[in-house]
Amino acid sequence: MARHTVGLVGGGQVARAHVIGFGNIPLFYGPERTADVVMVAEATDDLASTSAKRFGIPRWTSDWHALVGDPRVEIVDVLTPTYLHKEPAIEAMEKGKAVICEKPLAAKESDAREMYEVARRTGARTLVGFNYRRVPAVTLAKRMIEDGKVGKVQHVRSHFMEDWGGPGFPLTWRFRSSQAGAGALADLGSHSLDMVRYLAGEPTEVCGIAANFVPTRSLPGQSERLPSDVDDVSVVMLRVAGGAVAEVSASWVSPGRKVQLDFEVQGSEGTLYFTMERPNELNYYSARDPKGEQGFRQVYFGPAHQYGSSLIFGTPTMGTGYVDSMVNQMNDFLGCVEAGQECSPSFADGWRVSRLISAILESSSKKSWVSVG
Amino acid sequence: MARHTVGLVGGGQVARAHVIGFGNIPLFYGPERTADVVMVAEATDDLASTSAKRFGIPRWTSDWHALVGDPRVEIVDVLTPTYLHKEPAIEAMEKGKAVICEKPLAAKESDAREMYEVARRTGARTLVGFNYRRVPAVTLAKRMIEDGKVGKVQHVRSHFMEDWGGPGFPLTWRFRSSQAGAGALADLGSHSLDMVRYLAGEPTEVCGIAANFVPTRSLPGQSERLPSDVDDVSVVMLRVAGGAVAEVSASWVSPGRKVQLDFEVQGSEGTLYFTMERPNELNYYSARDPKGEQGFRQVYFGPAHQYGSSLIFGTPTMGTGYVDSMVNQMNDFLGCVEAGQECSPSFADGWRVSRLISAILESSSKKSWVSVG
Amino acid sequence: MARHTVGLVGGGQVARAHVIGFGNIPLFYGPERTADVVMVAEATDDLASTSAKRFGIPRWTSDWHALVGDPRVEIVDVLTPTYLHKEPAIEAMEKGKAVICEKPLAAKESDAREMYEVARRTGARTLVGFNYRRVPAVTLAKRMIEDGKVGKVQHVRSHFMEDWGGPGFPLTWRFRSSQAGAGALADLGSHSLDMVRYLAGEPTEVCGIAANFVPTRSLPGQSERLPSDVDDVSVVMLRVAGGAVAEVSASWVSPGRKVQLDFEVQGSEGTLYFTMERPNELNYYSARDPKGEQGFRQVYFGPAHQYGSSLIFGTPTMGTGYVDSMVNQMNDFLGCVEAGQECSPSFADGWRVSRLISAILESSSKKSWVSVG
Amino acid sequence: MARHTVGLVGGGQVARAHVIGFGNIPLFYGPERTADVVMVAEATDDLASTSAKRFGIPRWTSDWHALVGDPRVEIVDVLTPTYLHKEPAIEAMEKGKAVICEKPLAAKESDAREMYEVARRTGARTLVGFNYRRVPAVTLAKRMIEDGKVGKVQHVRSHFMEDWGGPGFPLTWRFRSSQAGAGALADLGSHSLDMVRYLAGEPTEVCGIAANFVPTRSLPGQSERLPSDVDDVSVVMLRVAGGAVAEVSASWVSPGRKVQLDFEVQGSEGTLYFTMERPNELNYYSARDPKGEQGFRQVYFGPAHQYGSSLIFGTPTMGTGYVDSMVNQMNDFLGCVEAGQECSPSFADGWRVSRLISAILESSSKKSWVSVG
Repeated sequence: MARHTVGLVGGGQVARAHVIGFGNIPLFYGPERTADVVMVAEATDDLASTSAKRFGIPRWTSDWHALVGDPRVEIVDVLTPTYLHKEPAIEAMEKGKAVICEKPLAAKESDAREMYEVARRTGARTLVGFNYRRVPAVTLAKRMIEDGKVGKVQHVRSHFMEDWGGPGFPLTWRFRSSQAGAGALADLGSHSLDMVRYLAGEPTEVCGIAANFVPTRSLPGQSERLPSDVDDVSVVMLRVAGGAVAEVSASWVSPGRKVQLDFEVQGSEGTLYFTMERPNELNYYSARDPKGEQGFRQVYFGPAHQYGSSLIFGTPTMGTGYVDSMVNQMNDFLGCVEAGQECSPSFADGWRVSRLISAILESSSKKSWVSVG
Repeated sequence: MARHTVGLVGGGQVARAHVIGFGNIPLFYGPERTADVVMVAEATDDLASTSAKRFGIPRWTSDWHALVGDPRVEIVDVLTPTYLHKEPAIEAMEKGKAVICEKPLAAKESDAREMYEVARRTGARTLVGFNYRRVPAVTLAKRMIEDGKVGKVQHVRSHFMEDWGGPGFPLTWRFRSSQAGAGALADLGSHSLDMVRYLAGEPTEVCGIAANFVPTRSLPGQSERLPSDVDDVSVVMLRVAGGAVAEVSASWVSPGRKVQLDFEVQGSEGTLYFTMERPNELNYYSARDPKGEQGFRQVYFGPAHQYGSSLIFGTPTMGTGYVDSMVNQMNDFLGCVEAGQECSPSFADGWRVSRLISAILESSSKKSWVSVG
Repeated sequence: MARHTVGLVGGGQVARAHVIGFGNIPLFYGPERTADVVMVAEATDDLASTSAKRFGIPRWTSDWHALVGDPRVEIVDVLTPTYLHKEPAIEAMEKGKAVICEKPLAAKESDAREMYEVARRTGARTLVGFNYRRVPAVTLAKRMIEDGKVGKVQHVRSHFMEDWGGPGFPLTWRFRSSQAGAGALADLGSHSLDMVRYLAGEPTEVCGIAANFVPTRSLPGQSERLPSDVDDVSVVMLRVAGGAVAEVSASWVSPGRKVQLDFEVQGSEGTLYFTMERPNELNYYSARDPKGEQGFRQVYFGPAHQYGSSLIFGTPTMGTGYVDSMVNQMNDFLGCVEAGQECSPSFADGWRVSRLISAILESSSKKSWVSVG
Repeated sequence: MARHTVGLVGGGQVARAHVIGFGNIPLFYGPERTADVVMVAEATDDLASTSAKRFGIPRWTSDWHALVGDPRVEIVDVLTPTYLHKEPAIEAMEKGKAVICEKPLAAKESDAREMYEVARRTGARTLVGFNYRRVPAVTLAKRMIEDGKVGKVQHVRSHFMEDWGGPGFPLTWRFRSSQAGAGALADLGSHSLDMVRYLAGEPTEVCGIAANFVPTRSLPGQSERLPSDVDDVSVVMLRVAGGAVAEVSASWVSPGRKVQLDFEVQGSEGTLYFTMERPNELNYYSARDPKGEQGFRQVYFGPAHQYGSSLIFGTPTMGTGYVDSMVNQMNDFLGCVEAGQECSPSFADGWRVSRLISAILESSSKKSWVSVG
């Protein structure tokens, strides 16, 4: 029996996802492990108490130092806007806490690197919120690639497209490069970049375009339009160690694409295709199937696969999705914490993705390839 | 703030689904309403304590009368094998409890009718577990039909196909007509029959085939094969009040179909298509779209629709499914209980579906149409 | 080198499909076999000459006896409205011609039977136009079933749904039972009935509903509405020799369904699914695939399959469809004629489908099962 | 009535596609226009006579000058390997013929430019074989973009992926840069580059990777492996005049992708998606649809659209594909020839695509952006 306690630094919309993730662990995986969210920190007392009430969290504070220093908090989960990740994450690690931090790790690559180095020095258990790795169909893809089911990986493609970011969407911190690091590339593209790393290996060079299509936005509730200096669409080419070629694109102005985080991995012997809009399905083509019966096979996540025990009736397709990825992420991390093992994706992964984002922005502004050796 | 207490009669696999449904209400819909599962009854002390431990339920009993009579239990949730629904459900209603009962309501139509009549007499709040009505895309279909989006409904089709019921699956109560009432027709087809009623209206006549393809099965863990006397595949034609024609089929021997609860509703002006294997999507064709731009439209469940506030980021397609249908079902029922209103589908609906099942079996054995006036 | 000559009895829209079918044989399969359409008969001189000009046919007549008796016509292709099939087809057989006849064979089962009996007596080569058997993906399904790829067939379903037949469509012969035999059931359902026979075997009993949703229609160009006495939607249950259960439905009032001739064949070991709206694709699920990698496989018609040599570059999915089914049908029939072999589907098949239609109408009006032993 | 005569320079597999295209014009569009293929030139007498026999062409020659100079040949159709296009095309234009040339126009950009300049100087009617522009669903996409259905185009993506080009495929001219100009980029990517130009406008800058994954291949029928110096996979980013960002990739080593020529055009108000593997379908999302009913709409090519009269029964989805694109291409070109109008895509388009290919190869080798002003 493991009973964990979690403190949230940041109590907004992402907190909701994490609270659902922690809360469902025993319901999905059994009563042996629980994680109680015991405290939340927000910028003001008002925000903190509202968040506590909303998510049923017993204690709250407007001073995150108090949360990070509280001995009743075992795990610190950092959910603030990107530019505010670093301080609480580092302080928590210094105090010996296990730390979860949302993605991307930081708005500046140097900050992400610093966070990673503190993690390495302190030996803290860390996790960066690339939760899509734990959608069961994605995990299955990773397993199949490792098992050689597609042969040698040659060509990888991942998009993350949504459609809420048009000119009517207000100017929040996500649309300021100083606070978010980048636009769609940071918010969405970071997941696709991590997907390429997870499935195909470490990129060595990047070349990209970070394009702004919505140069001005209004502050929430106001009409005056102010500059938005981030990319709304980014497209990237990458060379991956081992020789594969990769393509990534990210956009929040893709009409009709709602959570189109997809990937296609083409190897010498087969192909895997996935999209988060149909999260139960992994499409697999094997060139080794009998001639005349070859074709993309729509494999539904089911009890035979990792995370399969979470399926209520042991029946495939009974609706997995974002919630499941959150539950699986939290459950896996707690397992690592209990075992004293490094979890993945850790702050090392978070830093590497930040380095890629930084290199892509540099590539776009210099109009040249950039090495990320 | 509403704090409900629930007692489960039956603590097996279906209990898991219900516990998840109750537990996620505040996480999905806010802290104003909670439902604590406070007690579970099972056939033996061993089963009851195991279930309680598994689902984190504080109290347990091997005497369901004790649970039904316990003043700390507000809502009784009956999850036993079908033939054991009647007694606890009726006793609970007599004691003034709100009652949830899994589908089909009973193995015999006369029992279902009795349960319905007790509900009517006592005025008890009741719910029968046709949870798929509360998959958001299904609710949306109902709304669109009511809003005239497909014109006059003429032709309806619903299948429920799964593939786990082959000759290797053991002889449990579901494969005995005396205990389950019917086979695939009761377990799966009851949902499709309810779907036809929900979307198109009350059937008036039925004609069906209930076919057995697996005449013998082994008891769990044994090798001797004993008779299984239920349908593995049922196909049904129905005439619906108002003139629509309907088709229903149910099968647990449909290779590759995992949770293929689907429907197609064809009206004079449009068509709606849904399958539970892609639960986020409702497909809609409108003959009123401009010529040259007509086509099936894949509408993703989103924040603009009923249940939309459950979406973590207000983003469509973030993975809804069976869990969501359970949370929505429980939340809606509790809302009815609080408001003192009849909920739907109630035991009246449960009885009508049982009557249809009974008529279909009669039709199959007599090889004739049967009226269900 | 085989040079065939064809005469068309009937020169309307269906003639276009057949002319394209004959004309493309050498382009699809090589110059060894050609079929020249040398003559067309229509009801009047005007219609006949217009048709001849439209399709590039050198000779025409308003007297089909002249065509049938012309020694330069080797093959007589009957394309008239259904109730006018019998006479020219029989006269052609009596004169020793090979005869193609569109489906259904006749408006009355007795006429279809007579046509079949003349074919048997004269030994004429005959073909009835169930062309969808020769869509390559359908032929592949047949082959796979014969090869045991789905195990024992248990449950078959075929729909044929289109959407042009609403109240605005004029009152042509297809909407008169005396001339067409039935409505959607004859025009579309005949293909689905043949599909069940082709893929699963001979039905022994039927029970159906033939429903009229458009009771009046206007003659072309007029506004007065006159009765239409045929089914717009038919649904049917069938028992098939060997034990399989089948479902068929046909509708020309299915909004959004354009050429939705589909089938699903479920066996003890696998399932096949096809729809004519995506004619290059056969979906196949095998329960024998490795656990964890099972899923519907989307097999594209390609060079490894029958008719594969028709693919221009030997590349799958280069667009096969209705035209291909016509070319393949004509080419296969000419091959039979050259070899002096019975072709399939022959008038025997045509009669059996007419018998099914007749039995279904009887079943619908009597509201009872009807045997077709 | 227009009766055209065509001579083919090159009588191999592509000739088959063109012969089918010419031959079906009257069958698809009526007898008012025909195009007889009257002569074929091949490298040797043997090849020429075999081709003539195979395709039913009355005359043949091993001297293409004779064909080009023959007064009975009105239109010269150049179907040789890429590096052999220039001479016959130029000589034909100089002699006043209308000229069709397969894509890409030439192996070297300078040759393509020369061909284009001769066309301009002579005023010859020219066509380059980017036939996919004339798949009806693609033409519809173009029309809808022009009609403002997606708003301002911002992001375009087109892939062309096939899977036949693995290490087992022999070393033909397509795998030699001197003869083909490039590998998958020339053979397949040229279509995607043209698609970007057709749908979104002229690219101004490119940056690409041309990657070789199969460095050696065997000559047909031999086992010794010799170098193949072309790209098997190419990925490209493009900036398009007007501000749109584009991505193109081409591969013949994409397992399971058979004719995956796809595109996605994202505008400020909507998105269009197409893949040649389902050539009847254009997917359209409009942000202007009513809230709650938005979704990708699967529009089937039908009689309401350009080329709709080719549909045999005026019914959508009756199977359009590669053949249709060929018939439409030839029919449109002949219409231009008759009207004395420039046809599109002309040699001007062919040259621009060749310039893009050349720039992409330069970009890949220099690892830099290349301007194509």
